[in-house]
Amino acid sequence: MNRLSLNQWTTRRWSVAEAVAGCVRHGIASIGLWRDHVAVHGLEATAALVRAEGLRVSSLCRGGFFTRPGWREDNHQAIEEAAVLGAACLVLVPGGLPSGSKDLAGARAQVSDALAELAPYARERGVRLAVEPMHPMYCADRSVVSTLRQALDLAPPEVGVTVDSFHVWWDPEAPAQIARAGDRIASFQVCDFLNPLPADVLLGRAMMGDGVIDFPSLCAAVEAAGYTGDIEVEIFNADVWAADPDEVLTTMRKRYAELIVA
Amino acid sequence: MNRLSLNQWTTRRWSVAEAVAGCVRHGIASIGLWRDHVAVHGLEATAALVRAEGLRVSSLCRGGFFTRPGWREDNHQAIEEAAVLGAACLVLVPGGLPSGSKDLAGARAQVSDALAELAPYARERGVRLAVEPMHPMYCADRSVVSTLRQALDLAPPEVGVTVDSFHVWWDPEAPAQIARAGDRIASFQVCDFLNPLPADVLLGRAMMGDGVIDFPSLCAAVEAAGYTGDIEVEIFNADVWAADPDEVLTTMRKRYAELIVA
Repeated sequence: MNRLSLNQWTTRRWSVAEAVAGCVRHGIASIGLWRDHVAVHGLEATAALVRAEGLRVSSLCRGGFFTRPGWREDNHQAIEEAAVLGAACLVLVPGGLPSGSKDLAGARAQVSDALAELAPYARERGVRLAVEPMHPMYCADRSVVSTLRQALDLAPPEVGVTVDSFHVWWDPEAPAQIARAGDRIASFQVCDFLNPLPADVLLGRAMMGDGVIDFPSLCAAVEAAGYTGDIEVEIFNADVWAADPDEVLTTMRKRYAELIVA
Repeated sequence: MNRLSLNQWTTRRWSVAEAVAGCVRHGIASIGLWRDHVAVHGLEATAALVRAEGLRVSSLCRGGFFTRPGWREDNHQAIEEAAVLGAACLVLVPGGLPSGSKDLAGARAQVSDALAELAPYARERGVRLAVEPMHPMYCADRSVVSTLRQALDLAPPEVGVTVDSFHVWWDPEAPAQIARAGDRIASFQVCDFLNPLPADVLLGRAMMGDGVIDFPSLCAAVEAAGYTGDIEVEIFNADVWAADPDEVLTTMRKRYAELIVA
């Protein structure tokens, strides 16, 4: 249970202070923070709060979107924020096709170039980057990096990856690519995949056990690859967001025990 | 223009007789038939009609669904129908997870076993099978075969594949796997990928040019692999279905000329 982390977006209506208090109340030792919530609470104040409460920061979400104008400045800022927060990594959402473009190969090259450029910047500040391959249904609008194989191929070796159950569960190559990733796994996020998908496919993420993912085999692959870091529960789901966050955390602990570390 | 084929589902409200007449009226020399429409018109009557009008049958849609009870009988029947119609291939939708199951590896093994069993049955009847890898967002409910690489790996060499732009456009390995497929490409289907996706993700298919796919590079890869068969336009889209089918065919011919064989 000690490796369980609450990704803040799971209880998105909670402020930073409420989410930190929720973690403490439920015996959760780690939290994945979101930059917009952190900005509201204040960067230094958030860093002080999590330190005071003894929580680890399993990740900061998120940098990336390398195919949008202004990506460089935004990512420099995100890296500096991750350093202040002492986050184990900065999660990078690669970004989709540039507005109006159909040049997928070009967009992928942009992501590769941006990662190569940011890697030393992050290294000098002691921040670990974690590029997140995303489900192919988000290829156009959110991530032109669609598989773990591709993420490992296009990022410099010092850049880590985020393995997210929702994004990789379908991939026949996932077990082999998780093994290949080894200590490049900088972040492990879990949630289930709803079937059927809801009208907004971004909200197809569900509590572990409520969808179609075979967690024991996925978790065994990540464990066998040597990953010993925190396991973040990140759920974008209208029903979860509408529920009492304390009930969400209770369910989350139970499902984590049953499915993730069983 | 001679390789253009109308997949009947693009004008799904048209009966077989109406779709055949539409092809003749618009100078389209080939049609992809659907079994449910064919059953309404009658199998022998459909075969006689397309012969009389001089149309090719680029495919029969569809067999497969190998993870459902009764798959064997249904596929034997589909193969026999494809033989009577003289279809260039029988398109196979692999099927999703069995009801209530999370055993993805097991479902994939079921598909592989079924294809191995059906291959000689089809060969003896002169029917070419074309297994269709489908977009990973359909992995749970429609196709546990998610990539061209996987389809080529799990089917016997004599079984062909369907390359569908909607299903493969995002895949960084698509160009290499299309080249690898070579003469195993038994069917090429085109339509665009909508961004954002509609509420029912099954209807995210669009007229070529209305979405995010870079058709010239995809078509060049299929051409370079040696494929010389028909190119079927298959669109599942509420607006296309609501439109006058004759207007749909006019637009389809225009976009085909601009984007597919430019």
